[in-house]
Amino acid sequence: MDERFTKGLATRKQVLGEMPVAQRVASAQGELNADLQKYLTEFAWGDIWSRGQLSLRDRSLATISMLAAQNRPTELKTHIEGALNNGVTMEEVAEVFLHAAVYCGFPAAMTCMRLAKEVAAARQGAAG
Amino acid sequence: MDERFTKGLATRKQVLGEMPVAQRVASAQGELNADLQKYLTEFAWGDIWSRGQLSLRDRSLATISMLAAQNRPTELKTHIEGALNNGVTMEEVAEVFLHAAVYCGFPAAMTCMRLAKEVAAARQGAAG
Amino acid sequence: MDERFTKGLATRKQVLGEMPVAQRVASAQGELNADLQKYLTEFAWGDIWSRGQLSLRDRSLATISMLAAQNRPTELKTHIEGALNNGVTMEEVAEVFLHAAVYCGFPAAMTCMRLAKEVAAARQGAAG
Amino acid sequence: MDERFTKGLATRKQVLGEMPVAQRVASAQGELNADLQKYLTEFAWGDIWSRGQLSLRDRSLATISMLAAQNRPTELKTHIEGALNNGVTMEEVAEVFLHAAVYCGFPAAMTCMRLAKEVAAARQGAAG
Amino acid sequence: MDERFTKGLATRKQVLGEMPVAQRVASAQGELNADLQKYLTEFAWGDIWSRGQLSLRDRSLATISMLAAQNRPTELKTHIEGALNNGVTMEEVAEVFLHAAVYCGFPAAMTCMRLAKEVAAARQGAAG
Amino acid sequence: MDERFTKGLATRKQVLGEMPVAQRVASAQGELNADLQKYLTEFAWGDIWSRGQLSLRDRSLATISMLAAQNRPTELKTHIEGALNNGVTMEEVAEVFLHAAVYCGFPAAMTCMRLAKEVAAARQGAAG
Repeated sequence: MDERFTKGLATRKQVLGEMPVAQRVASAQGELNADLQKYLTEFAWGDIWSRGQLSLRDRSLATISMLAAQNRPTELKTHIEGALNNGVTMEEVAEVFLHAAVYCGFPAAMTCMRLAKEVAAARQGAAG
Repeated sequence: MDERFTKGLATRKQVLGEMPVAQRVASAQGELNADLQKYLTEFAWGDIWSRGQLSLRDRSLATISMLAAQNRPTELKTHIEGALNNGVTMEEVAEVFLHAAVYCGFPAAMTCMRLAKEVAAARQGAAG
Repeated sequence: MDERFTKGLATRKQVLGEMPVAQRVASAQGELNADLQKYLTEFAWGDIWSRGQLSLRDRSLATISMLAAQNRPTELKTHIEGALNNGVTMEEVAEVFLHAAVYCGFPAAMTCMRLAKEVAAARQGAAG
Repeated sequence: MDERFTKGLATRKQVLGEMPVAQRVASAQGELNADLQKYLTEFAWGDIWSRGQLSLRDRSLATISMLAAQNRPTELKTHIEGALNNGVTMEEVAEVFLHAAVYCGFPAAMTCMRLAKEVAAARQGAAG
Repeated sequence: MDERFTKGLATRKQVLGEMPVAQRVASAQGELNADLQKYLTEFAWGDIWSRGQLSLRDRSLATISMLAAQNRPTELKTHIEGALNNGVTMEEVAEVFLHAAVYCGFPAAMTCMRLAKEVAAARQGAAG
Repeated sequence: MDERFTKGLATRKQVLGEMPVAQRVASAQGELNADLQKYLTEFAWGDIWSRGQLSLRDRSLATISMLAAQNRPTELKTHIEGALNNGVTMEEVAEVFLHAAVYCGFPAAMTCMRLAKEVAAARQGAAG
C-alpha cells in the first residue's frame, strides 16, 4: 500500500506539479476526505496513471475529454493544467474542446473553452 | 459547401473505412435523416475532423473518451473501429476504458470494455 | 385524488391514444410498479400535462427535447408517438433531433433519428 | 389536495427543519415558481417522502446518492442537511461520497466531498 | 462560407439581440475560441437555426428543454433570453421548467426556475 | 495487493453470490479486461465495499440509487441482485425507484422499474 501511495504521489507530482500536491495532501490531514485523498493517490495515480500502456499525454487527452463530456469544471481546470504539463499545448486543449462541439454539443464546448481561457489567463498572470 | 462535403467524405472514409461510408450515404437518400447525414459529413467530418490542429489519432482518443463518458454504445462502437483505423491499438482502446473507471466510474468502464470486446470479436470473425 | 387520476387518464389517452393506456393500467394491477403508474397518471398527466399554461403541442416538443438530451429510448419512442398525436409532424420531430446535434452533440442526434425512423416504420407497417 | 399539502409540509419540516421551510414557502408567494413549490410539497414531500415503505434515513441515503450522480450542488447541500436530520452521520455522508468514487468516478466524489465540507463548516459556524 | 456566416449572424441577432452578438464576435478576435465562435455562427446559427422546418419559437422551446436536461446554466440563461425574443412568454418558460420536474426530476426544475428568476430580475432591473 | 484482492473477492462473493463471481473471474483470464476485473476486485470490492463505515445494506441502497440516476442497466440489474442479498427487499428496491421519479424524473423511474421486474421474474423462474 505504501508503495502504491508513493508511486501515486510521484505520478501526481509529475502531472499536476509540486506545490499543489504537497498542499492538498497536507490540507487533507485529519479531514473529512482524508481517505478519499488516499484512494485517489493510490488507485487513480498509483495504479492507473502510473501504468505504461498509455503515455501521460494520451491519458491527459482522455481525461480532459471525459471531463468535458461530464460537466465537472473544477476537475477539468486541474486537468487542463495537467495536460499542459504532459506536453499538450494550449492550442491542442482548445482543439479538443472544439472537437467536443461535435460529440457533446456546443454548450459543452463553450463551457470548456471558457475554463481553458481562465487557466490561460491565470498562467499569464502568474508568469507576467 | 460541396467542397466541405467532399473533404468530409474523404476524412470520414479515411477514419471509418470505405464500405460503411458509401452504404450509409446511399441509405440516407430521401430518408428522414438525409439532412443530418449531410451536416455530419460537412461539419463534423469536413470542418472539424479535417482540421490539422490535432492528429487523427488524438481525435480518436478524444472521441472514444467523450463517448465513454456519455453512454452512447452505437456511436462508441463505430469510433472504436475508427480509433483502430487511426493507429490506436486495441490494447490502448482498452486502456482508455480502464482510465474511464477513474473519471466516469466502474459501471461506465465495464460497459465500454464489453463493447470493445464485441468489436474485437467481430473483427476476428471477419478476419478468421 | 380520484379527480386528479381521472383527469390524468383523460389527458394521457388524448396524447398517447386509447389502447396502450388501458392496457398499461390493466397490466399494472397488483404489480411492482402499480404505485408508480398511479403517480404517473395523477401527477405527470393529471397535474402537469393537464395545465393550460402550455399547449399539448408545446409540451410534446419540450418532452421529446428533454428525452433526446437524456438518452431514454423507450420513453422517447412513446413520446414521439405522443408528439405526432399532438400535431407535431414527423418532419418536425426529425427537425428537433437535427436541432439536438447543436445542443446535445451528433451522437445524441443520430440515436434519436434512428428511434424516429423505427416509430415511422412501425406506423407505416400498422397502416400498410 | 390540502391534505397532501399539509402532509407534505409536515414531512418536509421534519426532514429539512422549521425555518427554511416557512421561509421558502413565504418567499414563493406570487412568484414565478409558486406552482413548482406547491407540487414539490404535495407530490415530492406529501406523496413520496411520506410513504412508509422506506425509512426517512433510507430515503436520505437514496437522495444524496442520486444527487451525487447528477451534479446538482444546491439540492445536494440541502439534502446533506436533510440526511443529518434523518440520522445519517456526517461520517456516513462522507462515506457515501467515497462510495461514489467507484460508481460515478473520482471527479463526482471530489465535488460532493467539497460540498459536504461546506455544510460541515456552516454548521460548525452556526454552532460555535 | 461567408454566406453561411452572414446568415448565421443575422439569425443569431434576431434571436439573441443586437449588442451581445457584436460584442461577442468582437471579443473573440484573435482569441482561443475564435474558431469555435465561427463554427457556432456558421453551423449552429447559419445552418440549423436558419432552417424553416421549425419556427424560431419552436426551436427556442426545444433549446431550453435540452439545456434544462443537461445542466448548462450559462447557455440556458442566454437561451431564456432568446426564447423571450422569439415570442415565448416568461410564464411559458417557467411552465417548461415545471414540465421538467416530470421528465428530468425536481432538482433540475428547481435549478432552472432559479435561473429564470435571475433573467427576469435582470430584465426588470434593465427596464426599471 | 493479494490481501486486497482476497478481501475484495470475499466481499464481492458475499454481495453478489458464489457462482457469478467465480465465473466472471475465470472468464476474465487472459482477456481484454483482466486488469479492469483485478482493479474492480481490489479497489471497488477490497478497498471500498469492505470498509465498515457503512453497512452493506446502506451501500446497496447508495449503489442502486447512483446507477438509477446514471442509466447503466446491466450494472443496475447486477446490483439489484446484490441489494436483495444485502437485505433490501424487492419492495424496498421498487420504492427506491419510485423515489427516483422525484429526483431523476419519471423516465428514469420507469426504466429502473422495468429492470427490477426483469430481475424479479428471473428469480421466480429460477426458484419455480
